[in-house]
Amino acid sequence: MKKISLMGASGSIGVQTLNVLRAHRDSFTLVAFSVGKNIDQARKIIEEFSPSLVSVQNREDAEVLAGEYIGKIQVLSGKEGLIETAVHPEAELLVNAVLGSVGLEPTLEAIKAKKTIAIANKETLVTAGHLVMQQAAEHGVTILPVDSEHSAIFQALQGEQHKNIERLVITASGGSFRDLTRSELENVTVKDALNHPNWSMGAKITIDSASMMNKGLEVIEAKWLFDLPYDKIDVLLHRESIIHSMVEFHDSSVIAQLGTPDMRVPIQYALSYPDRFVHKSDHRLKLEEIGKLHFSEMDFNRFRCIDFAYQAGRTGGTMTTVLNAANEAAVALFLEEKISFLDIENVIEKAMTVHDPIQNPDLDSIIGTDQETRSKILADFKG
Amino acid sequence: MKKISLMGASGSIGVQTLNVLRAHRDSFTLVAFSVGKNIDQARKIIEEFSPSLVSVQNREDAEVLAGEYIGKIQVLSGKEGLIETAVHPEAELLVNAVLGSVGLEPTLEAIKAKKTIAIANKETLVTAGHLVMQQAAEHGVTILPVDSEHSAIFQALQGEQHKNIERLVITASGGSFRDLTRSELENVTVKDALNHPNWSMGAKITIDSASMMNKGLEVIEAKWLFDLPYDKIDVLLHRESIIHSMVEFHDSSVIAQLGTPDMRVPIQYALSYPDRFVHKSDHRLKLEEIGKLHFSEMDFNRFRCIDFAYQAGRTGGTMTTVLNAANEAAVALFLEEKISFLDIENVIEKAMTVHDPIQNPDLDSIIGTDQETRSKILADFKG
Repeated sequence: MKKISLMGASGSIGVQTLNVLRAHRDSFTLVAFSVGKNIDQARKIIEEFSPSLVSVQNREDAEVLAGEYIGKIQVLSGKEGLIETAVHPEAELLVNAVLGSVGLEPTLEAIKAKKTIAIANKETLVTAGHLVMQQAAEHGVTILPVDSEHSAIFQALQGEQHKNIERLVITASGGSFRDLTRSELENVTVKDALNHPNWSMGAKITIDSASMMNKGLEVIEAKWLFDLPYDKIDVLLHRESIIHSMVEFHDSSVIAQLGTPDMRVPIQYALSYPDRFVHKSDHRLKLEEIGKLHFSEMDFNRFRCIDFAYQAGRTGGTMTTVLNAANEAAVALFLEEKISFLDIENVIEKAMTVHDPIQNPDLDSIIGTDQETRSKILADFKG
Repeated sequence: MKKISLMGASGSIGVQTLNVLRAHRDSFTLVAFSVGKNIDQARKIIEEFSPSLVSVQNREDAEVLAGEYIGKIQVLSGKEGLIETAVHPEAELLVNAVLGSVGLEPTLEAIKAKKTIAIANKETLVTAGHLVMQQAAEHGVTILPVDSEHSAIFQALQGEQHKNIERLVITASGGSFRDLTRSELENVTVKDALNHPNWSMGAKITIDSASMMNKGLEVIEAKWLFDLPYDKIDVLLHRESIIHSMVEFHDSSVIAQLGTPDMRVPIQYALSYPDRFVHKSDHRLKLEEIGKLHFSEMDFNRFRCIDFAYQAGRTGGTMTTVLNAANEAAVALFLEEKISFLDIENVIEKAMTVHDPIQNPDLDSIIGTDQETRSKILADFKG
């Protein structure tokens, strides 16, 4: 029985993680979890899984829940609650499925507490990959990817040696707007952007897919997870999202992981690793039914965000924090219909241009840079 | 320095094995080899690699070579010579790259002598897979596949557990005649059949690709190499031969090995296993240049030989020996232009229909069945 704590239980990855736990009750128990403001979801999870700890965003919600479940569960709130969820003494494995850089500190604390980390929260690696991987190495902690692309690479690397890697090839569906030109992108709406062709995901990541920033963040994430320079990480357009990513070795052999798009597969792999558990699916991969798989080169002019991501990654230091914070702020502004879709790029480009990066930043510098970047952008769009 | 013995050095796989040895002189030495009648090739190999033993098919050729290289190399001939090559005391790894069932006895002897076996000679597994795998298990010997499809599966299985395998998917290019209907197949010539679209291989295997028997033999080979029942081994038409084969696991995740068709890659992998050595190639896989990969269902009525292979495999015992011997005899008759292309199927079908299989046969029964099958067919076509 593997004991799991889950941060971000009401989000898309969180809900699918609960599906995996539900399908394998003999193998997994939920001992602690967090949600943001979705208290109804918290109640359902408490009743179904009987964990020992729940943490919510606001103290008021925590007090309501504590009143309802007296003597049954510990209820916490805020950043402290999130950290307690991450380091829960019973938990062996933490699933970090929160959105945004809020996942960083709890992850670092969980690493110190020697929890295995299944990471779906890419901003943690994008803003502080050097800290996370260094701490993980120091404490002998395994970081397991949950993103389908990184899970694919991780699976392809099983039984292989790092020195033999020639390059990683991260596949990209192209997102909701893959067939539009830049001029057609000028007037796209929030509703258009939220309509992803292959994957069912949260709003932020769906917008990031449409802008290709999602793939850019994945490139940076891959750099840290797999300890490779950026010139060994390539991106390939592959509209069907069937090949989830690949590793080319120096003998020219390529190992790929494939499947029908279904986030439960990489989530379950992270939970069952190094074993694989049965996943009952009515949509197993039948390539003879799909007929054709398409591939084309990534266009860095068409998708400027991926170019920004490589630039930020190569610059290093706090520049990736700026990339991520500016993107989060810009996507929020777009979802609030305060800026246009292409303005997301402009906001990020401006933030990167004015930033003077600090190399090898500590946690305080990262948090400072993150907040400063967001404040500047919000100030620009106030009034 | 890994010490290699090579049976079948002048054939297509043999020549490419020598290319691999040549590219990695610091890692491999050739200590023993065999050729059939190609004495010129034997001379070149002796001069380039200075092995300790050479074996040729005929005693007369052996005497000629022995006279030319007095005191420099041991020269043997015939079946005994082949066995001495296989069990050469210096060799750690035997590459079995001979054609046909002649490779069986030397392979069994090499297993007893605890040599690692890199097997390109599929007839050995098709006719006597149960003996080979049982002996390999008894003597703790590793059998490494050289065929691109089996190497792909073997690579996909690295770091994985056998219990988690859902099925193997062996890809098939469709061979030289993949776009022809059965009526168009009636008048195809030997020259047409030898023109394979993707792979540069020997004549026998190229004909076997056109008839789909090659894929049928591979299914049987896979059954033995990977210890799986036939209903867990599927075949998929994939004209580009880029995905070399796949493994689907019970969590619905699929691991595939890909690459530009180049037999040196799986040969080198078998030699370098579990490591991978650099393979310099001007034709590394660039899916963005290929653009599309195609997949379609195998048609068992169009390609009758693959149906025969599944039937023979499921019947078991000496039936796969009959399948293989009848196919070898029929392909030889076709190459001599004594029968038509579609007659290959008829010859095999008749041989299987009249055979009364012996279950769990010993080596003598296998050799007897093999010879009897060939004799009957030759008798049918004499005069």
